[in-house]
Amino acid sequence: MTGYLDDIRVDPSEIAAQEALYGPLTQSIRSLIDAAIRTEVDSEDIAGATAALTQVASLLRARQIDGSYGAQPSVTGVQRSWASPVIGVRNPIAPPLILEHEPDGRVWARFRLGAGYEGPPSLVHGGVSALILDHVLGEAVHASGHWGMTGTLTLRYRRPTPLNRPLRADARIDRVEGRKVYADGSISDERGITVEASGIFILPTGYAAAR
Amino acid sequence: MTGYLDDIRVDPSEIAAQEALYGPLTQSIRSLIDAAIRTEVDSEDIAGATAALTQVASLLRARQIDGSYGAQPSVTGVQRSWASPVIGVRNPIAPPLILEHEPDGRVWARFRLGAGYEGPPSLVHGGVSALILDHVLGEAVHASGHWGMTGTLTLRYRRPTPLNRPLRADARIDRVEGRKVYADGSISDERGITVEASGIFILPTGYAAAR
Repeated sequence: MTGYLDDIRVDPSEIAAQEALYGPLTQSIRSLIDAAIRTEVDSEDIAGATAALTQVASLLRARQIDGSYGAQPSVTGVQRSWASPVIGVRNPIAPPLILEHEPDGRVWARFRLGAGYEGPPSLVHGGVSALILDHVLGEAVHASGHWGMTGTLTLRYRRPTPLNRPLRADARIDRVEGRKVYADGSISDERGITVEASGIFILPTGYAAAR
Repeated sequence: MTGYLDDIRVDPSEIAAQEALYGPLTQSIRSLIDAAIRTEVDSEDIAGATAALTQVASLLRARQIDGSYGAQPSVTGVQRSWASPVIGVRNPIAPPLILEHEPDGRVWARFRLGAGYEGPPSLVHGGVSALILDHVLGEAVHASGHWGMTGTLTLRYRRPTPLNRPLRADARIDRVEGRKVYADGSISDERGITVEASGIFILPTGYAAAR
């Protein structure tokens, strides 16, 4: 099994070209998600928009892979993350987070969350914080050269996380015990930590521990 | 503070009319999310789709609320949930789950998750399971006549959750201790439980406990 740092093995110019093609498509759908929640245009315009969007979806579906993105045997390297609901270049559900890796293994990202991620009024949905933290902790595990699926994840909500404000996610691994990697992380706003997470990531049996 | 069962106080025919208007718009964008991940049409068609979608987003933004949906003082009752990233009629991020309430307080939903919710190949992202369970446990808390924000949420991943298969989420409250409501739940596939969750939901100070 390969770790995160082995992932970069596809021609970088091809990756950049595909990102330039799919990135704006994904971004236009992110804008539609936000607009669909916030629009106040009249019912004729809503119906017209619906018809136009349905037509574009048909055009995109004229040729498509069977099933999900990651299941394609051809998808390797950095493209593996493109369908991610947290960081995916091709997934409009993803805010997306753009992860930064520190030499000491810490992983972090700055981001904002808008109308599509709301729980209580003006606040980030607690489950969205959980989604993000699961992913960022998992990335810290990968960045350390390990690989594993989430075994246990515990979230402590210290105070509400605001929508439409600068946020930051941080994660690092704490220790490795056999097949278990322990990772910690948090989401912060400008005033400090809002949600803490700790997780145990487990290498499925059948895989040797990396490195 | 009101509980879930007090929420239905808007004219039902108006609610139905709005759902009939916004539901298909949201569904067309859900289809686009899936299509954007899976499409293999050529780059000219991608560029054409991007331009068309950007235009529709502008049309929808011609008149829109400021900020997020839930922050509008006019939004009450069942419409409060329409922006939810788990059950929202107006949120394309939501699969959506359609929650069923049992007389004994249990809450459950049947659903499937497609390409937009992928973590490891062909499997549901662990953070997506966390998002769904946070929401469904919270709904069980509301259904019991209480209200609270997530304080602690613990997820135990027993085995992988498959994409594109029938899934089910279940939740119920276990007990109430002062301002704390303890809830449990799970996601299951056809073979049984894949992820278990337990949460403590806390009534923020300043609100009296409901009922």
